[in-house]
Amino acid sequence: MADSNVKVLGTWSSPFVMRVRIALHLKSLNYEFVEENMMQGKSELLLKSNPVHKKVPVLIHGDNPICESLIIVHYIDEVWTSAPSILPSDPYERANSRFWAAYADDKFFPTVRKVLVVSTEEAKRAAMAEVLEGAVVLEEAFKKMSKGKTYFGGEELGYVDIAVGSFLAWIKVIEKFTETKVVSEAKTPSLAAWADCFSSHAAVKDVFPDIDKLADFGMKLRAMFLKAAAATTTD
Amino acid sequence: MADSNVKVLGTWSSPFVMRVRIALHLKSLNYEFVEENMMQGKSELLLKSNPVHKKVPVLIHGDNPICESLIIVHYIDEVWTSAPSILPSDPYERANSRFWAAYADDKFFPTVRKVLVVSTEEAKRAAMAEVLEGAVVLEEAFKKMSKGKTYFGGEELGYVDIAVGSFLAWIKVIEKFTETKVVSEAKTPSLAAWADCFSSHAAVKDVFPDIDKLADFGMKLRAMFLKAAAATTTD
Repeated sequence: MADSNVKVLGTWSSPFVMRVRIALHLKSLNYEFVEENMMQGKSELLLKSNPVHKKVPVLIHGDNPICESLIIVHYIDEVWTSAPSILPSDPYERANSRFWAAYADDKFFPTVRKVLVVSTEEAKRAAMAEVLEGAVVLEEAFKKMSKGKTYFGGEELGYVDIAVGSFLAWIKVIEKFTETKVVSEAKTPSLAAWADCFSSHAAVKDVFPDIDKLADFGMKLRAMFLKAAAATTTD
Repeated sequence: MADSNVKVLGTWSSPFVMRVRIALHLKSLNYEFVEENMMQGKSELLLKSNPVHKKVPVLIHGDNPICESLIIVHYIDEVWTSAPSILPSDPYERANSRFWAAYADDKFFPTVRKVLVVSTEEAKRAAMAEVLEGAVVLEEAFKKMSKGKTYFGGEELGYVDIAVGSFLAWIKVIEKFTETKVVSEAKTPSLAAWADCFSSHAAVKDVFPDIDKLADFGMKLRAMFLKAAAATTTD
């Protein structure tokens, strides 16, 4: 669809932006990607489109801005209803999918982020222990939801795949940073197989960031965060 | 509907539980309400039904437990599709509704909670300033969404009404605690009128908690929280 009149305000490094792009790819929609440079300052268009949070991603469809990644994925699924569906059709499966997407956002990813921003080795080890616990919870969830198939969503990549899979690149960054595997054949074999299929999926592979580049970016964010934290505690 | 086979695990004081009950009332569904006593210990049924978060509310429909209040409200709307609908039918309006419900949960309510648990007067004033800012943001959102009608959802009470309205009783508690109005004719006239309609709505009034009882409970929670915080910082 060439005339879908869709714009995405985002950054290459954000897992939340990645979700929106994967959903658009699944629906075979063309869109304009507008790269924001959050470090140098936010664009007028972003500030106007998301005045409450001033964050990416924003999807602009016609004149309508839609904010917050999981809300955008719902919107995409509800507007472009042609197959494939991103959310399952059964209400209980939908509720389960929303539950695990919320778990990924509210419980799991904050621990991944914590590994990168804490200042001591002890705090890093503690945060990493939480990440590893979360990965085991997700392994169990995967086994229940996928019922032996490739994705959380079954045969096809769906909502929970997008929600959890968008964090895989950042997981690889902390694996590198801590020299510890989070998703591995040994501890989370189902997630490990899923991660390979997810990353190489046609809707994903072009927006899956380069891990070395993301790791460099992560170290810059870490330095900025530690500097800001030090300034706050010594003022 | 007498045979709807629905159970709610909850507490009388939780705004999140209130959401689920309002949604069930809107759909005219009978249900069994199982009061949990979170201070004395969680029931086996709760631990089994929500093993990840171990929190109320849980809706049990047949043998299926559904967790997380806004996910439950979606589920109720998607299973019992007879009128009235809780979410609007237009995808953009749905996205907007989800946005403001998430704002209420992620931005607004944490500031309300903070007023009750901070230990100094200065921190209490700062938290209260955030609450008042949030109320003004919600006032503007109400004006845009309601388009001069009674509810966020227009003529009928809907998703954002449930999400934001469930916090009204706790807002009254912090108004009492700080002797400062949050929702008032002077500063948020539209929200003030809406709050009256919401609290007296047939689906709401029977589950809207008694404010004096809730304030007593709030002060007990505050004392417990401050004691726990003191123990953590002096150990």
